[in-house]
Amino acid sequence: MTGATARPVDLRSDTLTSPTPAMRRAMADAEVGDDVYGEDPTVRALEERVAALLGHEAALFCPTGSMANVLALRTLVGVGEEVLCESRAHIARAELGAHAAYTGLTMRTWSDPRGGVDLAAVEDLFAPDLGPFFVATRAVAIENTHNFAGGTVAPLADLEALRSFADAHGVGIHLDGARIWNAHVATGVPLATYGGLVDVAAVCLSKGLGAPIGSLVVGSADAVAESRVWRKRMGGGMRQVGVLAAAGLHALEHHVERLADDHAHARLLAEAWDVDPAGVETNIVVREVGDAAAYVAAAATEGVRVSALGRTTVRLVTHLDVTRGDAERAAGVLASLPR
Amino acid sequence: MTGATARPVDLRSDTLTSPTPAMRRAMADAEVGDDVYGEDPTVRALEERVAALLGHEAALFCPTGSMANVLALRTLVGVGEEVLCESRAHIARAELGAHAAYTGLTMRTWSDPRGGVDLAAVEDLFAPDLGPFFVATRAVAIENTHNFAGGTVAPLADLEALRSFADAHGVGIHLDGARIWNAHVATGVPLATYGGLVDVAAVCLSKGLGAPIGSLVVGSADAVAESRVWRKRMGGGMRQVGVLAAAGLHALEHHVERLADDHAHARLLAEAWDVDPAGVETNIVVREVGDAAAYVAAAATEGVRVSALGRTTVRLVTHLDVTRGDAERAAGVLASLPR
Amino acid sequence: MTGATARPVDLRSDTLTSPTPAMRRAMADAEVGDDVYGEDPTVRALEERVAALLGHEAALFCPTGSMANVLALRTLVGVGEEVLCESRAHIARAELGAHAAYTGLTMRTWSDPRGGVDLAAVEDLFAPDLGPFFVATRAVAIENTHNFAGGTVAPLADLEALRSFADAHGVGIHLDGARIWNAHVATGVPLATYGGLVDVAAVCLSKGLGAPIGSLVVGSADAVAESRVWRKRMGGGMRQVGVLAAAGLHALEHHVERLADDHAHARLLAEAWDVDPAGVETNIVVREVGDAAAYVAAAATEGVRVSALGRTTVRLVTHLDVTRGDAERAAGVLASLPR
Amino acid sequence: MTGATARPVDLRSDTLTSPTPAMRRAMADAEVGDDVYGEDPTVRALEERVAALLGHEAALFCPTGSMANVLALRTLVGVGEEVLCESRAHIARAELGAHAAYTGLTMRTWSDPRGGVDLAAVEDLFAPDLGPFFVATRAVAIENTHNFAGGTVAPLADLEALRSFADAHGVGIHLDGARIWNAHVATGVPLATYGGLVDVAAVCLSKGLGAPIGSLVVGSADAVAESRVWRKRMGGGMRQVGVLAAAGLHALEHHVERLADDHAHARLLAEAWDVDPAGVETNIVVREVGDAAAYVAAAATEGVRVSALGRTTVRLVTHLDVTRGDAERAAGVLASLPR
Repeated sequence: MTGATARPVDLRSDTLTSPTPAMRRAMADAEVGDDVYGEDPTVRALEERVAALLGHEAALFCPTGSMANVLALRTLVGVGEEVLCESRAHIARAELGAHAAYTGLTMRTWSDPRGGVDLAAVEDLFAPDLGPFFVATRAVAIENTHNFAGGTVAPLADLEALRSFADAHGVGIHLDGARIWNAHVATGVPLATYGGLVDVAAVCLSKGLGAPIGSLVVGSADAVAESRVWRKRMGGGMRQVGVLAAAGLHALEHHVERLADDHAHARLLAEAWDVDPAGVETNIVVREVGDAAAYVAAAATEGVRVSALGRTTVRLVTHLDVTRGDAERAAGVLASLPR
Repeated sequence: MTGATARPVDLRSDTLTSPTPAMRRAMADAEVGDDVYGEDPTVRALEERVAALLGHEAALFCPTGSMANVLALRTLVGVGEEVLCESRAHIARAELGAHAAYTGLTMRTWSDPRGGVDLAAVEDLFAPDLGPFFVATRAVAIENTHNFAGGTVAPLADLEALRSFADAHGVGIHLDGARIWNAHVATGVPLATYGGLVDVAAVCLSKGLGAPIGSLVVGSADAVAESRVWRKRMGGGMRQVGVLAAAGLHALEHHVERLADDHAHARLLAEAWDVDPAGVETNIVVREVGDAAAYVAAAATEGVRVSALGRTTVRLVTHLDVTRGDAERAAGVLASLPR
Repeated sequence: MTGATARPVDLRSDTLTSPTPAMRRAMADAEVGDDVYGEDPTVRALEERVAALLGHEAALFCPTGSMANVLALRTLVGVGEEVLCESRAHIARAELGAHAAYTGLTMRTWSDPRGGVDLAAVEDLFAPDLGPFFVATRAVAIENTHNFAGGTVAPLADLEALRSFADAHGVGIHLDGARIWNAHVATGVPLATYGGLVDVAAVCLSKGLGAPIGSLVVGSADAVAESRVWRKRMGGGMRQVGVLAAAGLHALEHHVERLADDHAHARLLAEAWDVDPAGVETNIVVREVGDAAAYVAAAATEGVRVSALGRTTVRLVTHLDVTRGDAERAAGVLASLPR
Repeated sequence: MTGATARPVDLRSDTLTSPTPAMRRAMADAEVGDDVYGEDPTVRALEERVAALLGHEAALFCPTGSMANVLALRTLVGVGEEVLCESRAHIARAELGAHAAYTGLTMRTWSDPRGGVDLAAVEDLFAPDLGPFFVATRAVAIENTHNFAGGTVAPLADLEALRSFADAHGVGIHLDGARIWNAHVATGVPLATYGGLVDVAAVCLSKGLGAPIGSLVVGSADAVAESRVWRKRMGGGMRQVGVLAAAGLHALEHHVERLADDHAHARLLAEAWDVDPAGVETNIVVREVGDAAAYVAAAATEGVRVSALGRTTVRLVTHLDVTRGDAERAAGVLASLPR
């Protein structure tokens, strides 16, 4: 049997997971109401649970992580003001410029091989408020884990040092925590510790946690109340959201600790790919190849789907729908393909 | 038993409906995929079905009707160009200015007691393209049925006359068809007839049809492809959308014809409210009272929830979760309350 | 001698005036500094003078009336909030949608044959702040004199009634006073009376007053300080502005009272055009013809330049560079042309 | 006599220059027309002259360099698309985010000590068009000379290498050439050589050239035609612009070659400041001090005005209004002040 005839192993993204039967039952049984009126008990329960996990006052359900990031950022940064981030951050690379197009905020970037916080670079870039002739830095955004850098975890010491810098200069910190769950499982650092180091965060239920849809803005009660209005303006004010929130609550209950399996599968795949597994901290492996598009096509022929992040960059992502057997099968294919 | 102790009859909006058990089963059983990658078979089926019903090439699932309206309008009207609409249109009154804030398009309005197409007003307002010194009219938006005018149906002859005008002047027509299903059921005019008279439309599954979440942009393949990109930019590119689309497919199968019941209930309530039932064409009744906020509060005390649209304007809406018995009970309360 | 060989009489707009020799001398002699740093004494003098004339605290020089209108409006109306205006207002028709494109504010309109304040329409349109589901009306914009309605003056009683309405409902009033000087001269109403009835205004030096460039935002010190920042963001923060401001100061000294001549010339032209001169209150005459483009071309052949405002609407404007003799010559041509 | 009692030497910016008597005469004598109608002969002559100097088809007069940069960038980069630039670029630091706020384009940055083109960094940052999930790089912006890096000149070889990269990848190049005149005079490289290496440029008359107001977009006829419309939308469509354009024509005739004097003065000041004059290529010197605000204040007390660019960064700029004697006097003060 070749990979081509078996069910493909789909490593393109952890957004690809289908809801499990148990998750579907939770959705089917969800108590609901109209969330535009604030009357959906299940989404309220989810919002309270996520806020508590991150140690913040409040949270707001959003249809996507992109919308959650945009809403969260605008609580810290005004029109024509600036956020600093790493150059491959999802907010810079994969949200079609929403932060500029829809909220008018500007960005400058530093580049770090592991997508991390380069505090010296942040200090160099930081623009104090010198009055109305210059753009002032209002926030630094971090992404933990960092998707395009390969699922890397931001070291806690770096986050603490950034917090000190931010406090000293009156700057906010935004966490793009689409995969903060993976960082938590990989390091054992409590979610509330990560949450306590930032002013506002966006977290996703639809990546590693396996929910079909859903992300949340997490922050102060004021930030969330303001985000609620702008969510409606952006077209994100949905109705009986409980059917989705129930999936999120189920995922938080059942799909967090199991991320360790995804991480193990990723290291297994890294080895087969001649990538140092010590550098694979969570569920993502990124590798340079000669021609990314050709590599993606060749792998697909062998029943393994990966994705191109650039002209020579390939990424694979493990997730809930990739079993140990799938990972082993994919490892065999990736080990054999010319790069 | 007074209204206050029984389950309240909630007539605030037809967005309030909970998914039925059968709809929940359809959602739980939905085949899904990642719609950002275009791989969710259920949402594709829904998009094809809605496009076919309206007689257009393609459709695009959106989290809300507000987002669908914004996306649809921008296929016709560019930055700094103009759409004309009736002054109480949902796009003007209830979308927090998204058309201006996020796509930079401008609006001028006419006022019509029934929210209808006042062709003479449109002709007066219409601004031809006189070159780059003046704003040019690129589209006329109609709302059918018209929410804030009381669920009124746009007469087919008016729509045809508008189409002729639009064709003669190179102007597009956008249909806010959040409740086009109600217009169809009330008049017997085929959905494709309504669809055939416009260039692009937004339709909702989450109002009278009773789905928890979901609206669609409907139009040409090009318009929908363009909207797909902007939907992602706005934060509306969700993942396993099939769980929601299944509800929409179920609703289209089972909840269209029954809208006639909602219309009958609305007329029953209108009579109790001394509103001429001949003017109540669908599921919405709007009435002037002395003090809308006080009236809303008084009705709530008696177990009937209605909403204030302005300082002296009250609205009630019938829907899937309002039975004949509910409507009769509410009629009794409304007949007895001072206005 | 036919019109075609003499110097054409250019009645297209009062923006066409060339600076007079005396005005040029004032510009050449102007004391200047860098206005971005707030150090240009001549522009400061102009700003103080215009603020005082209108009875407001402060004013801000802008390169154009369009920019002044946008800046002034945004001091009253936020993103996704609403301004009401007459449907042919310059801000609606002739600023390429800047209010929506650059500040995200929305607009609804009433239509009045003379471009005036239809208070009943304003009351109908007015949207109170009902919370974050609906667009709230934050301002009403008036244009005095009203360009596209034919230089009409807003009756003082109407402005006072609007002020009362605005005060009662917490709404601001913006005055597009590009030609407020003409209203003042036509009626004798002091500029400060007009200014006292509005919260913020934009006034122009480059229309009837004959300066080459320049408009001002007029309002409270706070509104002007805020506008100064946004002016820089829009690219309107110029340097040695005194060279332009000197023209404005000269115009205020020498070119206000003489607007009466322009008004007389306009009435003379109106009579020749079979337009009731009683309706010609200032320096603009608007007339319907069979085919505006053809009419404009025919008049140009005879040495008279007028402009098309629509398919069948023609406008003429008198100004500083149109002498009594010019007006009489043009009147002869216009009387003779088929309409 | 101390510095405090003599006329201060103002080295804050080269925007501070007053028009000379000869320039004022040229302005007073300018032939003018209404530029919104395209009828001002002097601004047309200036636009043609600047386009020819840079070797492009057309140019467009703008009130400020900020507006010119915004307009030029949007001819290359669409909403939600990306421009790359050095992190201290004027477009990133000193235009209040206009590129994001008004045209919705996004930015990522590299950092170079001399503000130069780091081609390796550009290659790393460059994002190819991978379809509608990722932001695509559409342009690289360079600033020559680079203001906040200290008036540094981009080496021609770097510009040529960037052009090759851009051509190979279908990316445009924008030149912020506010001080391209200084680069030309410092290196002898023809303006048309600089112009020939970019797709579009913004150049300023109001910096070293000494005109009071004015900047231009330079590029293809199409780019300029498109910019003309957006200039009006941004509120930059002024009327008798010839009064300003005449100053620009005068400056191009008389104030280009003399920039060599400013450069010599800057080197003289650098030596007094213990800054290596070899690194001072044009008219700007930047230096780190212990406390920039305190340093600025101390220098002002001694009659020398410089500006703070950050908490520890001080900048001085020589210009038309700084004589050799002024420079020597300032050098004495700066040599004596503690840093």
